Amino acid sequence: MDLFTPSVQHWLDLAGIFVFAVSGALLAVRKNFDVVGMLLLASVTGLGGGLFRDLVIGAVPPAAFTDLGYLLTPLAATVLVFFLHPQVERINRAVMVFDAAGLGLFCVTGTVKAHAYGLGLTASVVMGLATAAGGGVLRDVLANEVPSLLRWDREVYAVPAVVGAAAVALLIRAGELNGVTSGAAAALAFVLRLLALRYNWRAPRAWHRRSRRTEESEGEA
Amino acid sequence: MDLFTPSVQHWLDLAGIFVFAVSGALLAVRKNFDVVGMLLLASVTGLGGGLFRDLVIGAVPPAAFTDLGYLLTPLAATVLVFFLHPQVERINRAVMVFDAAGLGLFCVTGTVKAHAYGLGLTASVVMGLATAAGGGVLRDVLANEVPSLLRWDREVYAVPAVVGAAAVALLIRAGELNGVTSGAAAALAFVLRLLALRYNWRAPRAWHRRSRRTEESEGEA
Amino acid sequence: MDLFTPSVQHWLDLAGIFVFAVSGALLAVRKNFDVVGMLLLASVTGLGGGLFRDLVIGAVPPAAFTDLGYLLTPLAATVLVFFLHPQVERINRAVMVFDAAGLGLFCVTGTVKAHAYGLGLTASVVMGLATAAGGGVLRDVLANEVPSLLRWDREVYAVPAVVGAAAVALLIRAGELNGVTSGAAAALAFVLRLLALRYNWRAPRAWHRRSRRTEESEGEA
Repeated sequence: MDLFTPSVQHWLDLAGIFVFAVSGALLAVRKNFDVVGMLLLASVTGLGGGLFRDLVIGAVPPAAFTDLGYLLTPLAATVLVFFLHPQVERINRAVMVFDAAGLGLFCVTGTVKAHAYGLGLTASVVMGLATAAGGGVLRDVLANEVPSLLRWDREVYAVPAVVGAAAVALLIRAGELNGVTSGAAAALAFVLRLLALRYNWRAPRAWHRRSRRTEESEGEA
Repeated sequence: MDLFTPSVQHWLDLAGIFVFAVSGALLAVRKNFDVVGMLLLASVTGLGGGLFRDLVIGAVPPAAFTDLGYLLTPLAATVLVFFLHPQVERINRAVMVFDAAGLGLFCVTGTVKAHAYGLGLTASVVMGLATAAGGGVLRDVLANEVPSLLRWDREVYAVPAVVGAAAVALLIRAGELNGVTSGAAAALAFVLRLLALRYNWRAPRAWHRRSRRTEESEGEA
Repeated sequence: MDLFTPSVQHWLDLAGIFVFAVSGALLAVRKNFDVVGMLLLASVTGLGGGLFRDLVIGAVPPAAFTDLGYLLTPLAATVLVFFLHPQVERINRAVMVFDAAGLGLFCVTGTVKAHAYGLGLTASVVMGLATAAGGGVLRDVLANEVPSLLRWDREVYAVPAVVGAAAVALLIRAGELNGVTSGAAAALAFVLRLLALRYNWRAPRAWHRRSRRTEESEGEA
């Protein structure tokens, strides 16, 4: 199901992949990886979430491997960061805003596609989250970092994605999903993520943690 | 193939997912992750092994995304650990026993399901092991830990799972697989794991290691 | 499509899996893992790239689980390294040469198989790279190491694989793919990798990195 005209949706997808890929390439530079590492992290960040979704819902070969534009967009992001790394770092705040836009877009399209492949609404919401956040998790795992999605000292990322995806699920149930309403759901996730960044919204940690114990058992887990 | 009545098997599955998910949520607390990290680690630990098996055998969408109970059980485990973390830690020994029960259950159901989807007996045993141990490996990878399955200073986990899965394969070959015999195979894996915990059974490391070399090349690998 | 007679190709595949599996088992010994860890890293290194490719192109169950020889080869590699670890370490240079041969072989067979399953030529090249390099990346992720594929201080590995895979894609387009030409493409990747090892060819890092910044933000990424 195309929510917008096919070509508009395609360009939005490419834009989302591009900004995610930029974040992957930037992490590669910070970790002192070479250009191969930059391209791999860019690809995994931009395409990983959708790839995971497509494998789970049985949409093989995944869109990432059937559309040349998808495959080449991370290459463009890598070239940009390779030559203009300091400038891109300097607009890191703008990158975060674009990343939030990608988050909003992908949690919507991921939910819609999963539902179109026959998943239930709850499972589709999970797939919407996976589409939006999966690439970033894979990026961090490959870079041998604790995924920022899991860290308590990072602004919430999953919550806006789940809210946007759940809004889509409610719209599907109500039979009201169309270009306008799904755009509104994406905007909702986008704005929530921006607010989280602006006001440092963080998710809570378990009650009654004992910090001593936390440190002692660091190596035991 | 349902070994027990469908509803009994379903409840056993949910119980197994629950105890695995608890171990994931506990690791998240020890690593100081937030509630999003707890839920993600709980889900990955509880559902990851079966998800990997289903992708490999072509059972898409995987059971984890078609059965709402599967999807929501890790949420229940996360809520429990979130509010009652110290109490759950205190019964860590009991958690290990339940985890061993999950191990016994999943190595059996994983082997049976893989064989039902047309895999050979040896490949089905590998899938039984992957079902039982895969979630824990994914949990450790996401938490940026060396998987405890690989560590020599951990009691054997894979061996009981392989023994249980191999017992199922032999039963299938002999045409003797039914609710009673498969329950016995699960009990065998369960007891072996408990004995491993009780008597600190560990798997051997390679012969003639040179410890100096091990340390020197730590960073080179 | 079999490029060589089926049995020749099968033996080449097994040889490639074997040398990759040896590198996995060796890393496990260096990381002080037990025999379970050795077998898991050997299996993942030998079979992981092809497994990923088969999941993506929809060839399920993957070849790794339908051919007993594929499944058992990592076991043989583990037994070898378990008993003869110091001797295998001593011929580490020879292991690198065999690994380069595996790289050449798998980038060719991976590209051919992906194209046979309907992927476009560019996507097939990516799958050729994934087949050749994916197992090593999974090995390093499981061992909690930064994947050597990403590190700037390692000789290039991805570039020879991409060149070999791209040569196959050009041969397919020209209708000239056969046993001889595909063997030449594998040899090209093999020789490039050997030259990279001999002359320490490394891939460049991004321009204008600021080393201070790199260190400061190590923990932020």
